[in-house]
Amino acid sequence: MKNKAVLLLSCPDHSGLVAKISNFIHHIGGNITGLDEHVDINENVFFLRVAWDNIAGEISRNELIRLFTPLANSMDARWEIKLLSDKMRAAVYVSKFDHCIQELLWRYSNDELNIEIPLVISNHEMMRQLCENYQIPYYYKPRTAGNKIAEEQSELELLSDHKIDFIILARYMQVLTQRFVETYKERIINIHHSFLPAFMGGDPYKQAFSRGVKIIGATSHFVTEILDDGPIIEQDVIRISHRDSVRDLKRKGRDLERSVLLKAIQLYSEHRILLHNKKTIIFE
Amino acid sequence: MKNKAVLLLSCPDHSGLVAKISNFIHHIGGNITGLDEHVDINENVFFLRVAWDNIAGEISRNELIRLFTPLANSMDARWEIKLLSDKMRAAVYVSKFDHCIQELLWRYSNDELNIEIPLVISNHEMMRQLCENYQIPYYYKPRTAGNKIAEEQSELELLSDHKIDFIILARYMQVLTQRFVETYKERIINIHHSFLPAFMGGDPYKQAFSRGVKIIGATSHFVTEILDDGPIIEQDVIRISHRDSVRDLKRKGRDLERSVLLKAIQLYSEHRILLHNKKTIIFE
Amino acid sequence: MKNKAVLLLSCPDHSGLVAKISNFIHHIGGNITGLDEHVDINENVFFLRVAWDNIAGEISRNELIRLFTPLANSMDARWEIKLLSDKMRAAVYVSKFDHCIQELLWRYSNDELNIEIPLVISNHEMMRQLCENYQIPYYYKPRTAGNKIAEEQSELELLSDHKIDFIILARYMQVLTQRFVETYKERIINIHHSFLPAFMGGDPYKQAFSRGVKIIGATSHFVTEILDDGPIIEQDVIRISHRDSVRDLKRKGRDLERSVLLKAIQLYSEHRILLHNKKTIIFE
Amino acid sequence: MKNKAVLLLSCPDHSGLVAKISNFIHHIGGNITGLDEHVDINENVFFLRVAWDNIAGEISRNELIRLFTPLANSMDARWEIKLLSDKMRAAVYVSKFDHCIQELLWRYSNDELNIEIPLVISNHEMMRQLCENYQIPYYYKPRTAGNKIAEEQSELELLSDHKIDFIILARYMQVLTQRFVETYKERIINIHHSFLPAFMGGDPYKQAFSRGVKIIGATSHFVTEILDDGPIIEQDVIRISHRDSVRDLKRKGRDLERSVLLKAIQLYSEHRILLHNKKTIIFE
Repeated sequence: MKNKAVLLLSCPDHSGLVAKISNFIHHIGGNITGLDEHVDINENVFFLRVAWDNIAGEISRNELIRLFTPLANSMDARWEIKLLSDKMRAAVYVSKFDHCIQELLWRYSNDELNIEIPLVISNHEMMRQLCENYQIPYYYKPRTAGNKIAEEQSELELLSDHKIDFIILARYMQVLTQRFVETYKERIINIHHSFLPAFMGGDPYKQAFSRGVKIIGATSHFVTEILDDGPIIEQDVIRISHRDSVRDLKRKGRDLERSVLLKAIQLYSEHRILLHNKKTIIFE
Repeated sequence: MKNKAVLLLSCPDHSGLVAKISNFIHHIGGNITGLDEHVDINENVFFLRVAWDNIAGEISRNELIRLFTPLANSMDARWEIKLLSDKMRAAVYVSKFDHCIQELLWRYSNDELNIEIPLVISNHEMMRQLCENYQIPYYYKPRTAGNKIAEEQSELELLSDHKIDFIILARYMQVLTQRFVETYKERIINIHHSFLPAFMGGDPYKQAFSRGVKIIGATSHFVTEILDDGPIIEQDVIRISHRDSVRDLKRKGRDLERSVLLKAIQLYSEHRILLHNKKTIIFE
Repeated sequence: MKNKAVLLLSCPDHSGLVAKISNFIHHIGGNITGLDEHVDINENVFFLRVAWDNIAGEISRNELIRLFTPLANSMDARWEIKLLSDKMRAAVYVSKFDHCIQELLWRYSNDELNIEIPLVISNHEMMRQLCENYQIPYYYKPRTAGNKIAEEQSELELLSDHKIDFIILARYMQVLTQRFVETYKERIINIHHSFLPAFMGGDPYKQAFSRGVKIIGATSHFVTEILDDGPIIEQDVIRISHRDSVRDLKRKGRDLERSVLLKAIQLYSEHRILLHNKKTIIFE
Repeated sequence: MKNKAVLLLSCPDHSGLVAKISNFIHHIGGNITGLDEHVDINENVFFLRVAWDNIAGEISRNELIRLFTPLANSMDARWEIKLLSDKMRAAVYVSKFDHCIQELLWRYSNDELNIEIPLVISNHEMMRQLCENYQIPYYYKPRTAGNKIAEEQSELELLSDHKIDFIILARYMQVLTQRFVETYKERIINIHHSFLPAFMGGDPYKQAFSRGVKIIGATSHFVTEILDDGPIIEQDVIRISHRDSVRDLKRKGRDLERSVLLKAIQLYSEHRILLHNKKTIIFE
């Protein structure tokens, strides 16, 4: 595990990119364990995820970055290198619904998520007991119309103190300010309880009920300044019928929400997501 | 088959409705083979589909209607009685894409659809050969900006001459006038190539591609005056990825479109659909 | 809720059964809220589930049984009447894997299951903490080659003391004796980690891996004397690929197991399952 | 298209394989358009599919093979190189059911399959009209207990005359001799109408009905000497209920069979399948 590295890269497409990168990995003593690539033909962009074992011995992430920089520069690439042993640190935001955080914490305790969760932040007290059962520090941060700016500032400091890499909105029912979103740009993952772009905004299950759809969905996406408009990571659906009330939709939807959010977190924590404009490239 | 009858009924809910209706069927010598009901608790409406064999001997549809009318009136019901041996007569409208009509005609020739298809109408010549292979009369009815009203009038007469009960829009790419829609109110079934209400209107696969969704869908619905807004009968979805171009979405979507439209036609032809406001109750 | 009753019935099919039963319900002041029926044409057997609200006032289960008995006898029926307010009492058996019991107890605590769980029995100590978090009494009942008969006798007494109606095997890895199975005949629900009848017996994920299947499944069924052969209640599947190791299959399968077992328990607790020979009729 | 090449390769795993192969492709003027690899950790085997455009100009398949042979030998590899412009030539075998061949021929006529179908062989006359509609030569080859060996010999000559690369059994209801299977070893693709390994052998829908499963499936696999035991290429399933008769299972299963067989043919024709022992590695 210590020696597992991942490179995520995108750059203008031209011939020989895979050869150059696989040569690089070979020369630093790496054995490729997985390689996936994609070319956007319309825009002529090359996307790559490659994972390798440093079989020749441990190399630090800084050293890998230093070694790869000249090649990356020559390719005009946007890239990052990660070690799987450096678990990303997530702050979980939650409000009143427990199904998503319940699933996350159970998986976390089962060692199924390659992340650390140093803290949970909530605008309610309701999830405190659950978090304490799992020994996770819980911060009650109520929101009022008046305190939003000050409160977010205090939370940003808290996140910074805990060296948070990314944020999971596990059914957090407050809208974040643009400033907050920009601070964690492309690093806030939300779960929306509809099959986006259908039923954006509030009360999507009620919207779905009113429209009479035969299938409902859930969508995990990166948060941007525009509500429910960020790049989609994962979606799933479930069949419903005329027998299902709004309450039934909420119940059925809960199962979707937790599995879809979980999948998004797994993909992100294993460095399987590349962003391009407002879309994601997912290398499973 | 001759003796199979179906009652579709909706009325204000009160106690004893199932007893009254099942007594009625018993008294006319029917043996119930399937009964499904639903109560809309918010609006206090009772919905029923009941199918029976007239084991005491054949009774005509008109006689069944005459016998049931007093009971129906006492319930203040909206209802219809159908014999499964009276196959509904469908006109199929099609433009340039063959996948939906191909599927329909193959199932039709295999005797999997309880309908008659006396004619196909198209604004192009492209499907003529296919229809003639299946020995179905084909009417080429080109549309121009100027001839729409006159053309529709001529088609309405053609439909009337062929005693058409309902219309299947199997990827027909023309918008029908309000007058046409009202003439076949709640009797025109369309297939839209998206998961409605996402991506209404033109080029939904391109819209889906641009938004970067991870799942695409198809929707069969009744046509109303408002485009892509009618009551939904059936929907289904398929998973896609960043590897799929707009052309791939169209290819994958074709398989959805044909199976979703086929399912809608099967449900309608077996009298399994009740309409309530802009939603459907489907008794499978 | 107090006034919600359910009748499950099977009998030789003949004309007028629905009328008779719906009349009965109407006469005792019930309003039918759901009715579902099925006729096995080959064997001429009629199956029914009907649920009603006793709108005329509360009637005890014993009184309902007394009132219905003459009609049931005249139909030569196998039947039972239940009140939804009488929650069935389940004993959960578990060994070392926590995913199924975790799901059950979470749903139970969320009031999503119409059952009582007075106790958990395990041949290991590992689930004690979890059960105590949910305040459910935990009985550690280790099994050895020598103590099986005596141990089961002691457990049967425990189950009897707690008035247990049915048993949930939530990944319990011991085979029950024929005597035990007969005591709770048609009342023990197991989850098997394969798509039965494929991969019966031990280590089904390893069997699936060896065969190179592209989809794995899970099956919930009633326990009979023959291992993994009882009537199937619910099944579900998930897609796998050559990339999945046996460990991956176990991880993916866990999600299936918990959702499939949960679904089976929901169906059973709402009296939606009829047994016929070695098959189930499920009225959803 | 003329310049699109695919390499399928397996060999003992060691470090640097991707670098060597991507260097090779780069040096002959190729631009990699897709690369997928897999390592079987238990058996230490490396599997690769790489596709490239020969942007430096057309190179013949023979030349590519000549150029790659030394590198392949040094890796102790099992491998093949294909040009996508060399469409594989398939013989379709069929008996009495039309759904699979209907689907194949429609897709073929729509140019969705990268194959040529020079002939159809059947032990019945029933599909002749369909094949002639699509202008495909049809050979009626009846089978009797006595003529099997002679008949197969005559068919092998026919296949050889038409330079057949692989055989599609589109619901062909005769068992092939071991000699025939060995002649087209790993090149005969069958569709079996069950979720293998459940319900091997005859009448799988009846078997499924008797067992009372809640889901049925279809399986496409390579044919080996042992019936229904060859490496699985693709599987899919559909949900059923107690309402479904054996006839319903057959009807629902038909839709699975045709989509599963089609998928297998697409994968094979695009050189996406590697065989290892009795399992497939599928690079989608």
